[in-house]
Amino acid sequence: MGYSLQEIAKSIGARLVNEDPKVPDISGVASLGSAGPHDLVFIEGEKFLSSALESRAAAVIAPEKIAGQIGQAAKVFLLAGQPKLAFVRAAMLISEHSADHQLGVHPTAVVHQNAKLGLGASVGPHSVLHNRVEVGARTRIASGVTLGAGVIIGKDCVIHANVTIYPGTTLHDRIIVHSGAVLGSDGFGYVLDNTTGKYEKFPQIGKLEIHDDVEIGANTTIDRGALDATIIGRGTKLDNLIHVGHNVLVGEDVVIAAQTGISGSCVIKDKAIIGGQVGLGDHVTIGEGVILGSGSGVLTGKEITGKGEVFWGIPAKPLKQHLKQLAVLSRLAKEK
Amino acid sequence: MGYSLQEIAKSIGARLVNEDPKVPDISGVASLGSAGPHDLVFIEGEKFLSSALESRAAAVIAPEKIAGQIGQAAKVFLLAGQPKLAFVRAAMLISEHSADHQLGVHPTAVVHQNAKLGLGASVGPHSVLHNRVEVGARTRIASGVTLGAGVIIGKDCVIHANVTIYPGTTLHDRIIVHSGAVLGSDGFGYVLDNTTGKYEKFPQIGKLEIHDDVEIGANTTIDRGALDATIIGRGTKLDNLIHVGHNVLVGEDVVIAAQTGISGSCVIKDKAIIGGQVGLGDHVTIGEGVILGSGSGVLTGKEITGKGEVFWGIPAKPLKQHLKQLAVLSRLAKEK
Amino acid sequence: MGYSLQEIAKSIGARLVNEDPKVPDISGVASLGSAGPHDLVFIEGEKFLSSALESRAAAVIAPEKIAGQIGQAAKVFLLAGQPKLAFVRAAMLISEHSADHQLGVHPTAVVHQNAKLGLGASVGPHSVLHNRVEVGARTRIASGVTLGAGVIIGKDCVIHANVTIYPGTTLHDRIIVHSGAVLGSDGFGYVLDNTTGKYEKFPQIGKLEIHDDVEIGANTTIDRGALDATIIGRGTKLDNLIHVGHNVLVGEDVVIAAQTGISGSCVIKDKAIIGGQVGLGDHVTIGEGVILGSGSGVLTGKEITGKGEVFWGIPAKPLKQHLKQLAVLSRLAKEK
Repeated sequence: MGYSLQEIAKSIGARLVNEDPKVPDISGVASLGSAGPHDLVFIEGEKFLSSALESRAAAVIAPEKIAGQIGQAAKVFLLAGQPKLAFVRAAMLISEHSADHQLGVHPTAVVHQNAKLGLGASVGPHSVLHNRVEVGARTRIASGVTLGAGVIIGKDCVIHANVTIYPGTTLHDRIIVHSGAVLGSDGFGYVLDNTTGKYEKFPQIGKLEIHDDVEIGANTTIDRGALDATIIGRGTKLDNLIHVGHNVLVGEDVVIAAQTGISGSCVIKDKAIIGGQVGLGDHVTIGEGVILGSGSGVLTGKEITGKGEVFWGIPAKPLKQHLKQLAVLSRLAKEK
Repeated sequence: MGYSLQEIAKSIGARLVNEDPKVPDISGVASLGSAGPHDLVFIEGEKFLSSALESRAAAVIAPEKIAGQIGQAAKVFLLAGQPKLAFVRAAMLISEHSADHQLGVHPTAVVHQNAKLGLGASVGPHSVLHNRVEVGARTRIASGVTLGAGVIIGKDCVIHANVTIYPGTTLHDRIIVHSGAVLGSDGFGYVLDNTTGKYEKFPQIGKLEIHDDVEIGANTTIDRGALDATIIGRGTKLDNLIHVGHNVLVGEDVVIAAQTGISGSCVIKDKAIIGGQVGLGDHVTIGEGVILGSGSGVLTGKEITGKGEVFWGIPAKPLKQHLKQLAVLSRLAKEK
Repeated sequence: MGYSLQEIAKSIGARLVNEDPKVPDISGVASLGSAGPHDLVFIEGEKFLSSALESRAAAVIAPEKIAGQIGQAAKVFLLAGQPKLAFVRAAMLISEHSADHQLGVHPTAVVHQNAKLGLGASVGPHSVLHNRVEVGARTRIASGVTLGAGVIIGKDCVIHANVTIYPGTTLHDRIIVHSGAVLGSDGFGYVLDNTTGKYEKFPQIGKLEIHDDVEIGANTTIDRGALDATIIGRGTKLDNLIHVGHNVLVGEDVVIAAQTGISGSCVIKDKAIIGGQVGLGDHVTIGEGVILGSGSGVLTGKEITGKGEVFWGIPAKPLKQHLKQLAVLSRLAKEK
């Protein structure tokens, strides 16, 4: 019930130091404070070395660069170039043993006769798969999920409980969608009828397409396109309670923190990093690799570019300029 | 399977120009970029005329005022005073053919014996209608919806999957509620007991009433009144992830963008336009036709008035004043 | 069908004045404007005395200190030291009669054979209780709720419709969770692999523990810890659409208003009061009894302390300083 340190070291590409045959097999990962004798922990530098040595952990993943400080410590180490990443890989290896879900289609699920399920796919209690839904191999649909007509989901995805996916939405492979998320809902678009003064609903009949390896947080909402598509690129990670409006194009490996709102027709390019509670007006472009601080706001139609550069504030400006404005205001208020 | 251009022109009140018997019937609407040979597109001015002519669309809805520029173009046009509105009407006409839902009550739905369903109303899989619920004619309740005891919904409404409506809430006619929305939940009110230092829950037993033609976005929450009612007026449109607190009174034809938060007892009058991520403190009044920029904040108890006037910032002030403050701060930071 | 004024006075510890045998039994509580002849209302001071006298209410809860002004008024009064609190207690007494839910496990619920239900616990239609779930005595699980494997819920809780609780989460006693809330979802943590430029998911395998008397608003999300735990302390109240990140520690009797976002590893100490749409960066500490104004922002790693002191703005600063900055900026913009 677990993995030997040799197996783990080999699997994650780490170097085993201070090997000790008395150390038991590893069955979990943990923090320094909570680790037990079957757990693996990690440190990213010398700072937490003494805590690691005092922990109850079976072994410690640590950076190669502190090999010299470890010496003959009474603890087994796995040394790696990227210790946190090695820890992630070890956790994945171990957790493959502990899946706690049922295979197959639960008898209370309502699956349309035209829906197609891949090999090893599962559908939980009370989920609903409408006409022409396709679910890929090994994808797990939890309970209370609704997949609208024509929804296509790739392989190895996890759709958590009470997610709703509107008709026609496409998800590719290895996507995780957390509970309460709503994918493919109507965008917010109306036309004011000048003669009656009333709003008429503009058609929201575009698609939503989500590419491989995306993760979507709890209660996040992503609207379908109005006439064209909303697209979320490969590897992008969205936190909880985010709003993505219609026709938004998000690139690859983008990270967006909780409660950020992205208005219609924005373009967010690859590897951008966007903090929490950021607000983007319509038709904003965020360039490749831009870093937008939490709570920033970008006005309608603006473009922000600069790989690796940090922008902050409302309206968002280069970090240095933002800090200077804060400092000036603070000083003026003290003077007067 | 579709409509002739003559039928569409007549239905939406547009003037047909450059008629061409070879043009096939119309079965959809689309954007200029995605249109196929059976699709209708629209332009709002001369700017996109050449794109429209190059598109694969069967015909183009355009403003009457550019009739002169069209000439003998090799494309059929439908000219209208409000082209975008004409496009909306055409889309509605065409989409009536394409409904993809089942009529009647799904066998897995749990409908209380005292619930009443109007003619042509439908209830999807795993939805729950408690005691004394009433659903009007042709209203569609999707899957996984819970309607609490005494909920009344009018006719021609659409309640999308996984919506929750608390007991006693009333919805009138032609209302759309998107997935994950929660209507009529308890407001946030407590009384601090001075002797114990603990909070006691204040009764949240008022109602929530939503009038005709309202649309409510995904995962938006609207609390019931504490002792009185929360009311959303006719024609008002709420985007995703909005919070509306207890005892709020929203007028008619109000538009509120995503993630805005409206604290308890606010009053928002007719035709106000409120951007995304706006925050209103308790007991704020927003006057008729006021426009509040995205990210603005209004302090508890304040009133903002001025039909058609734009306010912005935290605290919200007239746009000109807000821009001046931004400019002054920016200049001072550059000087020092 | 109701309570006599004598019974209510005794139960809530109030003094009955101007007793009148013609006044009927009390069956509800209401606002001054909506009260009928069987309702109880309350006022907190002399200001609303005339409205109370003109109301149709059977009796008025009022503060002891205005006993002198009541005289021989043609209305029965219940005088109390904390009238709003007395009103809350009266409402609780009366509402115990009006529960409108079914006992037991609904036949459409899916309850794992290893799940345990306490005496008088109920499970609504289409709810799902996975392996090893425990639900305490008299706790009510509404419809469409999913409780993951190993979820433990104490006694006298109310879990409203369409709530999702992830595996391993623990809730103690007398907790209310409103619809659409997601408890125990994965936190937002990734490790960038320097060699591929891609993000790998950091394990999110810690727990979420929620203590007695907490109330959680609609569509609020609380993430489980990454390796350790996220904890919400006794008596704390969370409004709608709040985000609480992984490893956050919230103390006792904390109040947090709607749409506030709390990033990972924050510590919020007892009796803090946090307004709506506040944003806290990672590893922020909010001291005991601190009051944070709505829309404030606190930067990563900062600590704010001062019992009963008010902080406001982005970044949050003492109220006086914040107001001075606003005033200075406003004056400068007028001058130039």
